[in-house]
Amino acid sequence: MRYDFGSDNTASMAPSALEALTQANAGYAKAYGADDITARAADLIRQKLDADAEVRFVFSGTAANAIVLSMLAQPFEAVLAHHAAHICTDETGAPGFFGQGVGLIGLPGFSGKIDPVGVEAWLDEPEVGHRQPPAALSIPQSTEYGTVYDADELTALIGPAKVRGLGVHMDGARLANAAAAGFDLTGIGRMGIDALVFGGAKAGATCTEAIVLFDKNLARRLDNRLKQAGQTASKARYLAAPFLGLLESGEWEAGAAHANAMARRLAQGIVERSAFVLAHPVEANAVFVRMPSEAHAALNAAGWACYRFDDGSVRFVCSWATDPAAVEELLEAIARVG
Amino acid sequence: MRYDFGSDNTASMAPSALEALTQANAGYAKAYGADDITARAADLIRQKLDADAEVRFVFSGTAANAIVLSMLAQPFEAVLAHHAAHICTDETGAPGFFGQGVGLIGLPGFSGKIDPVGVEAWLDEPEVGHRQPPAALSIPQSTEYGTVYDADELTALIGPAKVRGLGVHMDGARLANAAAAGFDLTGIGRMGIDALVFGGAKAGATCTEAIVLFDKNLARRLDNRLKQAGQTASKARYLAAPFLGLLESGEWEAGAAHANAMARRLAQGIVERSAFVLAHPVEANAVFVRMPSEAHAALNAAGWACYRFDDGSVRFVCSWATDPAAVEELLEAIARVG
Amino acid sequence: MRYDFGSDNTASMAPSALEALTQANAGYAKAYGADDITARAADLIRQKLDADAEVRFVFSGTAANAIVLSMLAQPFEAVLAHHAAHICTDETGAPGFFGQGVGLIGLPGFSGKIDPVGVEAWLDEPEVGHRQPPAALSIPQSTEYGTVYDADELTALIGPAKVRGLGVHMDGARLANAAAAGFDLTGIGRMGIDALVFGGAKAGATCTEAIVLFDKNLARRLDNRLKQAGQTASKARYLAAPFLGLLESGEWEAGAAHANAMARRLAQGIVERSAFVLAHPVEANAVFVRMPSEAHAALNAAGWACYRFDDGSVRFVCSWATDPAAVEELLEAIARVG
Amino acid sequence: MRYDFGSDNTASMAPSALEALTQANAGYAKAYGADDITARAADLIRQKLDADAEVRFVFSGTAANAIVLSMLAQPFEAVLAHHAAHICTDETGAPGFFGQGVGLIGLPGFSGKIDPVGVEAWLDEPEVGHRQPPAALSIPQSTEYGTVYDADELTALIGPAKVRGLGVHMDGARLANAAAAGFDLTGIGRMGIDALVFGGAKAGATCTEAIVLFDKNLARRLDNRLKQAGQTASKARYLAAPFLGLLESGEWEAGAAHANAMARRLAQGIVERSAFVLAHPVEANAVFVRMPSEAHAALNAAGWACYRFDDGSVRFVCSWATDPAAVEELLEAIARVG
Repeated sequence: MRYDFGSDNTASMAPSALEALTQANAGYAKAYGADDITARAADLIRQKLDADAEVRFVFSGTAANAIVLSMLAQPFEAVLAHHAAHICTDETGAPGFFGQGVGLIGLPGFSGKIDPVGVEAWLDEPEVGHRQPPAALSIPQSTEYGTVYDADELTALIGPAKVRGLGVHMDGARLANAAAAGFDLTGIGRMGIDALVFGGAKAGATCTEAIVLFDKNLARRLDNRLKQAGQTASKARYLAAPFLGLLESGEWEAGAAHANAMARRLAQGIVERSAFVLAHPVEANAVFVRMPSEAHAALNAAGWACYRFDDGSVRFVCSWATDPAAVEELLEAIARVG
Repeated sequence: MRYDFGSDNTASMAPSALEALTQANAGYAKAYGADDITARAADLIRQKLDADAEVRFVFSGTAANAIVLSMLAQPFEAVLAHHAAHICTDETGAPGFFGQGVGLIGLPGFSGKIDPVGVEAWLDEPEVGHRQPPAALSIPQSTEYGTVYDADELTALIGPAKVRGLGVHMDGARLANAAAAGFDLTGIGRMGIDALVFGGAKAGATCTEAIVLFDKNLARRLDNRLKQAGQTASKARYLAAPFLGLLESGEWEAGAAHANAMARRLAQGIVERSAFVLAHPVEANAVFVRMPSEAHAALNAAGWACYRFDDGSVRFVCSWATDPAAVEELLEAIARVG
Repeated sequence: MRYDFGSDNTASMAPSALEALTQANAGYAKAYGADDITARAADLIRQKLDADAEVRFVFSGTAANAIVLSMLAQPFEAVLAHHAAHICTDETGAPGFFGQGVGLIGLPGFSGKIDPVGVEAWLDEPEVGHRQPPAALSIPQSTEYGTVYDADELTALIGPAKVRGLGVHMDGARLANAAAAGFDLTGIGRMGIDALVFGGAKAGATCTEAIVLFDKNLARRLDNRLKQAGQTASKARYLAAPFLGLLESGEWEAGAAHANAMARRLAQGIVERSAFVLAHPVEANAVFVRMPSEAHAALNAAGWACYRFDDGSVRFVCSWATDPAAVEELLEAIARVG
Repeated sequence: MRYDFGSDNTASMAPSALEALTQANAGYAKAYGADDITARAADLIRQKLDADAEVRFVFSGTAANAIVLSMLAQPFEAVLAHHAAHICTDETGAPGFFGQGVGLIGLPGFSGKIDPVGVEAWLDEPEVGHRQPPAALSIPQSTEYGTVYDADELTALIGPAKVRGLGVHMDGARLANAAAAGFDLTGIGRMGIDALVFGGAKAGATCTEAIVLFDKNLARRLDNRLKQAGQTASKARYLAAPFLGLLESGEWEAGAAHANAMARRLAQGIVERSAFVLAHPVEANAVFVRMPSEAHAALNAAGWACYRFDDGSVRFVCSWATDPAAVEELLEAIARVG
């Protein structure tokens, strides 16, 4: 089975990530994040975001998202999110586990983007004691369906939320792909987002993600919080080093730009060479295709790993590692089944 | 500051761990632990333990311990452990967080080993509704104070616990050092231990640890449990690869044997060349020294990182990476201050 | 404002409940549930259910439901329930709080009854690590929309669930009304229901509810569980006494029969004397009416407390205390607005 | 067995409490705490404390304490308390359950009173990520060993805690007894206590306790918090009515004064008529006696329920209901065994 397009976490580390990790493997280093590599990687993230934020490296995106949400919403409150967001569909209820029962309210909207009407409707609901009122808004960028919010769309969601005192979380598992699609990273801290998960794994690192707190009040006793939650690395340099490599080399963005370009090429080829229809605009590194079960099965049988999503479409994901020749091979296979 | 002896997590990855990680970084791999490297590393652990156990690789020892304990004890129950065990003193209450308030009962005993009298006293307590009765026993091997339980000592603890239906957890963060000290790994599964944390970080890996479930009933929906707890690696090969390297090469045990030898050399030198007294028997890779505050401060000022523990002694830890010459340098410094 | 029909928890204690409570207030009694009144009330519940079950009295239905669900499903699992069930809509996420993030899966179905197709669809879903698989089924009887499951309907839901190993919870906040509508209480324990919440508050008690565990394995360390959850009464006789009174006197069922009869009378009157349409069959003690906002507002303005539900209808609830004359007064008022 | 002195929760409701509860049982009342009785009882508590505080009635002291502590300390923080405090020894770890693993740090001190040296030692500890730093201080008044803090003693504890930003909780399960011993209730809100549990059960109510929040910031979404925690009464009047009766009639304090007087009489008799020694000063309603196991067993055998505590002494508790003749009978029995 070929996993090239199964997900962007089937790819290996990008060269600069491995190189930095290898270099980090020299001599002794202070543990628990007090080392130089961690400090340098955090600085680079702050530079990229042009913000004086608190940065911590953690082991998984699921934990990063859930921990941030537990800062923004209490157990008896809820988080507004797109119903197809990763936190709602693919994290086994982690927000509720870390947040002791915090609620998730799934909102509608085309192609993974929240329709602002849904947010406002919830914000207009009168509060009652027997429900969990919304206390936070969670936005992935790019979205679960491969789309990218523009600044106006984000403002339309974030503005009303901030006015009502909600905290705002951005899940940037694929932030690099959004950036490569033109999203301005330096605007994140200025548009009212309190906390960002800055993605590493899907950008060519190991499983590392960075929690970025623009609102430093959220960082009170953050190290205790992370340690208790099993997200403190003793040998922290190995979490930070891949970030350091990717950010110093420029591969963080370059790899994402390549991934996005490969996705566009794939989408174009599907439109041109098959009868299949794209399910969502291709703005980042994923291509969602409306495809009958038989065609999907035939593609799997032909050796291409790809998965059906809740909206019924089949997803193909590109990464920094996607070989243009593999795109052409996949297109051949798709053409054969449809 | 020199961190050689500050802890065994200040050392880098051992050569075979880095080598395996580098080799793992080739091409695409199935995500979430379904890859070959994960399978091979798990097999090697099973072989080393001579047991048909469930194995999962997780990101941190704190999480591994807490998750295992949440399998063995309910929130309204408690875990028996030495009062100085890592789970009691150095994990920011993680067992209570993952276990929704599960209790920790700190037991006494010399040099980090639980006195069986304490276990039996608790097991003899009549149960009452307003207290958390013990449901699990947690044992580190080697212990927080650098001692190693022998099989008889373990049997004396585990036997009564199993008779009363308690689950037994072994925290093997430094299992390699215990093995190097003569502890028979193949006996673990046979002496009634339900779950083991098989240590990687302190044996020369990154932060990886392995959860090993001898009682397979505990593994029901384990993948859901780990995912919800933020302990599932998408790019799982990077968690397993260091284990694969260490276990295939034999460095897992050889590095620990070296660490133990260095600790013995250090201990011997301290006895011979200073007025300081050893606080605990040196059976694994750590040396605890009774040392006045002034001497400790002078040693820190001379550039040697070392920390005072709750028992008042100062700890020095050796690792696979410890340079014999550094031991001599440290001994010089210690001789100067005491 | 008149609260006669606002809910069935606006009514006072039924006479036999107050009488028993007053009688219970004599002399000293052993605390924490070891008193005679508690024992006698539990016996009466077992008799009524014809089952040798564990019985405990707790303070609130929300807690009773959430605690039972935490016995049946782990945090990384989920509970199947009707989307309009009280646990889903009116308990502020209590199942997630007591169950450390346990999921709730809202199922469709007419008039508050789960459509078995929905249960089977979920049971047929392949399990994946990144979702919370269903581990329990929760069924209110009577339902949130005033309907009553018959034995066949329950069997159609429970059978497939039990086959797949799910636990089954019945929320009997209005069990008396279901019984008065013909539901056979002695069948509950025989149809595979593991745990029942036997309702007191809405049947004329104070806020007391009883947890009934048909599966006695669930009762392991139940007293510790309840105490930790803040649901153990020191002066337990005051929780049990209202039950004792209601069950000894027969008011538990007689009051519910009266409530149901009043609801039928109200429903009939609405159909006869207004243009409003009933939203759901009136099988227990609640009447749901499709009513424009203006009519609803006018009714409120006329002094009748009544509330709009998520399905858009307005609810009127009868109780043991409902005065037939008040039904006629309400009908007059409804006739005036519609 | 006679339970007169087994605890103060073996007594029945005081006459005014039952009377108010009976009177509350008239007609319909708005649910969930929006009724008049609840409002009037809350007002009386505010008057008694001379403070404009938020007041809510909950079902149990265990829940009240745990919920308040969850407001004052995060899961990765800890609560300082006397090691023998009820929250540490008799609530099955409820603070950890409601507080998702929040730590409890047991402090020493004679006769249930925290030695201020212990508080200051903990406050002087340097914070580290791997431990739970103290974020709250919990003080019972009167204490678990029947002693009463005077204002100076409280100031010596609270002052340093507030300076470091800790929240302060007072467990007033036996606040009435402290008040009857001379403790000024109007000072509570002025000495830096953020939240009080105002005791009802042991003062002659049912199991009701009141949460009093002097710091109104803590009350944000309090109704959602209580509902989720299973501590919201639908028929709230039955929680508030006993308070209303006790406070309007003056029985809340008069009953406690009687209880304290009976305890003093009992203590005096024990000293005069037996060889037993009092374990703690008798300042409220409990008498702790150093008594050999044989004497304790003989007393139990003679029909008097009384329990051995963790300090090894045997406790006798008086209440509003204690009959002076029963004190004499008990003294006879004690004289016979010792």
